Amino acid sequence: MIRVLVWNEYKHEQSSEAVAKIYPRGIHNAIADFLRCDDIEVRTATLYDENMEISDPTCGITKEILDRTDVLIWWGHMAHKFVPEEVACLVRDAVLSGMGFIALHSAHHSKPFRYLLGTSCHLCWRESGDSERLWVIEPSHPITRGIDRCFFLEPEETYGEPFSIPTPDRLLLIGNYSGGEVFRSGCLYCRGNGKIFYFQPGHETFPTFYVPEVQTIIRNAVRFVAPTYRETITCPHVRNINDPEGYVIVK
Amino acid sequence: MIRVLVWNEYKHEQSSEAVAKIYPRGIHNAIADFLRCDDIEVRTATLYDENMEISDPTCGITKEILDRTDVLIWWGHMAHKFVPEEVACLVRDAVLSGMGFIALHSAHHSKPFRYLLGTSCHLCWRESGDSERLWVIEPSHPITRGIDRCFFLEPEETYGEPFSIPTPDRLLLIGNYSGGEVFRSGCLYCRGNGKIFYFQPGHETFPTFYVPEVQTIIRNAVRFVAPTYRETITCPHVRNINDPEGYVIVK
Amino acid sequence: MIRVLVWNEYKHEQSSEAVAKIYPRGIHNAIADFLRCDDIEVRTATLYDENMEISDPTCGITKEILDRTDVLIWWGHMAHKFVPEEVACLVRDAVLSGMGFIALHSAHHSKPFRYLLGTSCHLCWRESGDSERLWVIEPSHPITRGIDRCFFLEPEETYGEPFSIPTPDRLLLIGNYSGGEVFRSGCLYCRGNGKIFYFQPGHETFPTFYVPEVQTIIRNAVRFVAPTYRETITCPHVRNINDPEGYVIVK
Amino acid sequence: MIRVLVWNEYKHEQSSEAVAKIYPRGIHNAIADFLRCDDIEVRTATLYDENMEISDPTCGITKEILDRTDVLIWWGHMAHKFVPEEVACLVRDAVLSGMGFIALHSAHHSKPFRYLLGTSCHLCWRESGDSERLWVIEPSHPITRGIDRCFFLEPEETYGEPFSIPTPDRLLLIGNYSGGEVFRSGCLYCRGNGKIFYFQPGHETFPTFYVPEVQTIIRNAVRFVAPTYRETITCPHVRNINDPEGYVIVK
Repeated sequence: MIRVLVWNEYKHEQSSEAVAKIYPRGIHNAIADFLRCDDIEVRTATLYDENMEISDPTCGITKEILDRTDVLIWWGHMAHKFVPEEVACLVRDAVLSGMGFIALHSAHHSKPFRYLLGTSCHLCWRESGDSERLWVIEPSHPITRGIDRCFFLEPEETYGEPFSIPTPDRLLLIGNYSGGEVFRSGCLYCRGNGKIFYFQPGHETFPTFYVPEVQTIIRNAVRFVAPTYRETITCPHVRNINDPEGYVIVK
Repeated sequence: MIRVLVWNEYKHEQSSEAVAKIYPRGIHNAIADFLRCDDIEVRTATLYDENMEISDPTCGITKEILDRTDVLIWWGHMAHKFVPEEVACLVRDAVLSGMGFIALHSAHHSKPFRYLLGTSCHLCWRESGDSERLWVIEPSHPITRGIDRCFFLEPEETYGEPFSIPTPDRLLLIGNYSGGEVFRSGCLYCRGNGKIFYFQPGHETFPTFYVPEVQTIIRNAVRFVAPTYRETITCPHVRNINDPEGYVIVK
Repeated sequence: MIRVLVWNEYKHEQSSEAVAKIYPRGIHNAIADFLRCDDIEVRTATLYDENMEISDPTCGITKEILDRTDVLIWWGHMAHKFVPEEVACLVRDAVLSGMGFIALHSAHHSKPFRYLLGTSCHLCWRESGDSERLWVIEPSHPITRGIDRCFFLEPEETYGEPFSIPTPDRLLLIGNYSGGEVFRSGCLYCRGNGKIFYFQPGHETFPTFYVPEVQTIIRNAVRFVAPTYRETITCPHVRNINDPEGYVIVK
Repeated sequence: MIRVLVWNEYKHEQSSEAVAKIYPRGIHNAIADFLRCDDIEVRTATLYDENMEISDPTCGITKEILDRTDVLIWWGHMAHKFVPEEVACLVRDAVLSGMGFIALHSAHHSKPFRYLLGTSCHLCWRESGDSERLWVIEPSHPITRGIDRCFFLEPEETYGEPFSIPTPDRLLLIGNYSGGEVFRSGCLYCRGNGKIFYFQPGHETFPTFYVPEVQTIIRNAVRFVAPTYRETITCPHVRNINDPEGYVIVK
């Protein structure tokens, strides 16, 4: 059983009527709904509670919760700064220990994603009702399984290059937009013991998370980034390989 | 002219007589001395001043200084935590804008290096008088120019795998130690507009920075990571490519 | 069930008494013996038959056989040139379609491996009774599962850097030798739809394939490179995405 | 002085009146004309001579010629198969020794390019008068220097993903087409001691090589892939590092 935690700001859905119509129970529940299945169990956590308050200073993320999470999915947009440093570092360290991490859409600017990649993760952007077509670059990768040569999103917010990220370990999808831009829309990284997948679709004002291909890719990604090995990385003092007392001392 | 800034903690040289004998004017000056030449000018900055005080809260690093620096060389070991967050972030951002960065030895744990790479940068280590042999993996790379198949350091602190870093863009050198371990000793990264080189030798209790091959590699690296392009990366709001008003608005 | 084909030159075992003592039924059978288990079935093929003749001009490799093979393991040393071009290209194309490929030891110079990587795959070498210690670089990778920090081979043929290969997608193991050298001993590549693992141990005059860690790594690698997707890659003439007649025409 | 050799099939220009109008002296001369400058000298070679015969079985490429070439630019389309195996291997080996190689447009299917990369280099394609927009992914790379966010080609042959190549060391440009597709249009590789740049524009029926941005990128690429180190890679028998007779024996 893969234990997924879907984290969402949960702000736009409560402050904008248009967004609320698309995602009445929040983006986190829309994602949870299509993910739940025989081998995937899903919980959710949000920054804002149902009174639009940040009542829980941990944003629903503690070390204990992350220890019981195989894959953390992150959606955030306008409130990245309200995620405490300690929480962002807990997430980063859990990923380095092996937890899978999926950053969706504007989570390119979230603290955990930026801290894990090290770059600004800036990009070009435009909200203008462009449509997007996403093309599969690696048809044999498990994350693109079941996807045709390309699929269509009408509309989606435009994200354009240059996207300031480290060269992905694997580039799986490239999107192009009716207004001109191209974007590396599906990027896979290994960091420490963990796997990270960035997936560009998912603007809050569009019903993107109801699109079958988007759901397929996120479900595939959950299975792909789920850990097979998880261990906190340390910086051990080691003895000479031939030392009779044994060679590793973890300080 | 390449403008190098050598940054050093400058702690061990003042607190340990043994280290002071090897580097009487500090590791920063030892590096500056062999680097200075027709195309390289060098300044230095230190965390501790000559009274073993942290008198300058910026550690000698301000935005203005970084703007006039092409390559920043970093040596730190025991006092990483005294480098203020803002200074670490200034360095990170300067590298992402294009400044070259060379992290030496225990700077694997320095804030700027860890923030740029995103991982823990943990490793295995041992101080036991091992000798090290460093092998050239990429003989055609400009950074290994002038180096034979391998060279020898007697002694050097042992650093061992697993070294928890992202897969280097290029792995240039691998070291092995008389006590058993191997280590990815020369690692090159591109991040944003900048280039980063990690080079493992340089423990404070050994005269490593007087070894000709070590000097050659650091000098080569300075020339290789020096920027040819430098620009702050932004996250611009862009118009449709066909918009008659022009397509980029930097917000 | 993963269908493995172990291919072996089967020359040294028949021409050298010393080798025959170690691998009386050939290296291919030694490998087959430890691989066979509930989820792995194994066949073998050899260049030389039991009369030391190349009686089968296909070396036991046809398109039909490869179509029924999930993972091909290759051991060859002195007779690379007797593998026909067409057979080498069949193997290359099967890997590009998705078949897993594991090249052992001196198969670094085999035609299929060189054709898939594109470089000379030259290295430095020495037969001198050195021992080797192999270090795990990526402890969380499925191929190194079950292996401690390092393991020991006494003796093994020395292979040294520079190893003229493309930068591996993942470097999993580094070996070092008592005579000095280091070597990238476990290298993983994706090419087309297929995965390729190069593993350095396995000189014919040593009982390397009886070492538990070597067996574990090869077994892990079989499971890791086994295809989840297999399809011949073509170069299709495609129509405009909006063409009412449909957009792909495979010529 | 960088010594460039531009190699061209020179077939379409002699068999099609439309192509001849665009490139009356052949694509090779169009490229040579814009490349020649203070630091670049250019020679040309062609498969077909001016009588549309393959009069020179070497296609103008010998070991001696390659030894005097710093960068080889390759344009081919319909006659890849007439390039002899030995010539293709000479080119491959020269690149592995350090010669720079630039493959233009349909040279994705040329023997030297395929042999160097190891994959099929298949892609999707369409000749339909689409326009293309090429976007800069890495604005700080020397090859994209002087290029704005994107540039326009009207028309250009459509090349689409999946493009069956190894993951590029650096992806510099992505193109998108009015008919829908996206393509990794600027791909950089290191192989052996050499650098390889693939650049997608340049269909024979369009005046692509007169476009200033195309010329800038090819000129930048020539300077970037020009070797700083060139040496034939061998497979030397080496002695123990401590052997008093010295440690390398090239066999």
